[in-house]
Amino acid sequence: MASYIERLNQRIQTCGTPALVGIDPRWDLLPDAIRLGSAGSSGTIHERTANAFEVFAKQIIDVVAPLVPAIKPQVAFFEQLGVPGCRALHSVMAYARKSGLLVIADGKRGDIGTTAEAYADAWLAGEDPEAAAWPADALTVNPYLGSDTLKPFVDCAASRGAGVYVLVRTSNPGASDYQDRETLSQPLYEAVAKTVQSLSFSLRDHQTYGPVGAVVGATWPDQLRALRTLMPNVPLLIPGYGAQGGSSEDSSAAFHANGLGAIVNSSRGINFAWLRKPFKEQFGPDRWLDAVAAATHEMIADLATHTPAGILRQSLPAK
Amino acid sequence: MASYIERLNQRIQTCGTPALVGIDPRWDLLPDAIRLGSAGSSGTIHERTANAFEVFAKQIIDVVAPLVPAIKPQVAFFEQLGVPGCRALHSVMAYARKSGLLVIADGKRGDIGTTAEAYADAWLAGEDPEAAAWPADALTVNPYLGSDTLKPFVDCAASRGAGVYVLVRTSNPGASDYQDRETLSQPLYEAVAKTVQSLSFSLRDHQTYGPVGAVVGATWPDQLRALRTLMPNVPLLIPGYGAQGGSSEDSSAAFHANGLGAIVNSSRGINFAWLRKPFKEQFGPDRWLDAVAAATHEMIADLATHTPAGILRQSLPAK
Repeated sequence: MASYIERLNQRIQTCGTPALVGIDPRWDLLPDAIRLGSAGSSGTIHERTANAFEVFAKQIIDVVAPLVPAIKPQVAFFEQLGVPGCRALHSVMAYARKSGLLVIADGKRGDIGTTAEAYADAWLAGEDPEAAAWPADALTVNPYLGSDTLKPFVDCAASRGAGVYVLVRTSNPGASDYQDRETLSQPLYEAVAKTVQSLSFSLRDHQTYGPVGAVVGATWPDQLRALRTLMPNVPLLIPGYGAQGGSSEDSSAAFHANGLGAIVNSSRGINFAWLRKPFKEQFGPDRWLDAVAAATHEMIADLATHTPAGILRQSLPAK
Repeated sequence: MASYIERLNQRIQTCGTPALVGIDPRWDLLPDAIRLGSAGSSGTIHERTANAFEVFAKQIIDVVAPLVPAIKPQVAFFEQLGVPGCRALHSVMAYARKSGLLVIADGKRGDIGTTAEAYADAWLAGEDPEAAAWPADALTVNPYLGSDTLKPFVDCAASRGAGVYVLVRTSNPGASDYQDRETLSQPLYEAVAKTVQSLSFSLRDHQTYGPVGAVVGATWPDQLRALRTLMPNVPLLIPGYGAQGGSSEDSSAAFHANGLGAIVNSSRGINFAWLRKPFKEQFGPDRWLDAVAAATHEMIADLATHTPAGILRQSLPAK
């Protein structure tokens, strides 16, 4: 069985970029063509919105599947539509897998004991998309309940070739409220980071990285640098790039010199690229998918220029 | 609009008990009658299992609706079955609402900004079951991401007459890993508790309790006592009673002298009562619902005997 990290790194190297595209559908921001398309369909408002989300996400997937290694659907936006949203999410995840993308479900799940086992079993399909109810390669996980609650996720991930990204330092302003608390010897997020490093180190199986990753926001570059040092064997997922204010330079410390070790996410900046400069003027609403492609290429180039991931481009076969 | 707390306290006083029944369906533990019933039905394994979970949960609801104020479905066990599980969960929640029960969705959700808004909008129906995709009266929420991430949940709860239970001190052994970290002045969970108290205090609207509750495990009675003092205006949800080892005495400090202020949850101890003494011998698998009823009555009596909630029974009209 190929581990999550083997599959992820293969995709990163094949695509020559660590860019991760979030899928964050929002009704208010959908292109008119998709909103109008759903207006004629039947069903409840949730069903019609879910259908529109599904069309929107699959069209983005068609654009980005040849360009980036993975997508990160935000579970909340689908869950908001109830059962039809869950159906759409499942369909989008399966479609992405068939398109060759890895799928990181951003569910931030976490619970104790057998409940954590249930969440792990639900989401961590790993190498075989049929191995779980939701065909995710990896899942974001909340550590607040304690390291014993991470274990069911880690065990399941290891057995199925799946990955886990533990929230260590999130990208929001209030991240400092609890995560930065200085404990007697260290801030809380460092204590969480040490747990994550220890878990990934013990499971790395002759590779640099183990299956237990960490979420560290690009909006906190100093902490990111310190955390990369604290967690040398941990694959990082970097949110906060783009719309949240983090830059490629801010993400740079997440990478090792070989260009591996991290994936950088952009959701709104790509999903709704046609609403911002310069793509708004360049493409307009009808060519929103061209804006998605242009924004993805822009992000890939930005990461290649300003982070060690640039080395990945140099290793790509000439096209 | 009636607030969550008004509705909760009314139900607690009508039922004369703070007992909360968790809904934790587990295939391995389902009564034979329900497993056999699903064997003949068509559909995928997930569909058949979800149908069995739905039947199981609704039969429990029929038993406990006249006895207790609320149920707490564990979202993970339904999510584990994919879309069919989500459909079953929705149906169970709606059925519980129609049966007069309050529904506390145990999803432990948490995320930042607009994503937190989406989770809040998804789950916090509040007084009107139609106001959200999932008809919950309240939701459990994870605070690790910071107090700014609690705000969307709190705002939504306040506007819809819904409630939120923030994880403060969970019931698992590893709760001490991070929650107990001594920061410069206090353990982390006390810092979270102060945030929760402040939120509920500011929204309490001439009542004792605001809409922002806290989860505090019965398995840590000393911390529970301290936290009740720190959070006088916070409604508590107490897990860890019964199967996890917490007793009614351990829960006692959660209550105020008038018998209000807390609800105590039991899931496995009631759902699977026919698998344990003395109910196993008394009822056997065919009378599993009689075991559910007996276990619920036992819990109600135990809480009435060993906690201040006993005073609620004395105020009930004679039957």
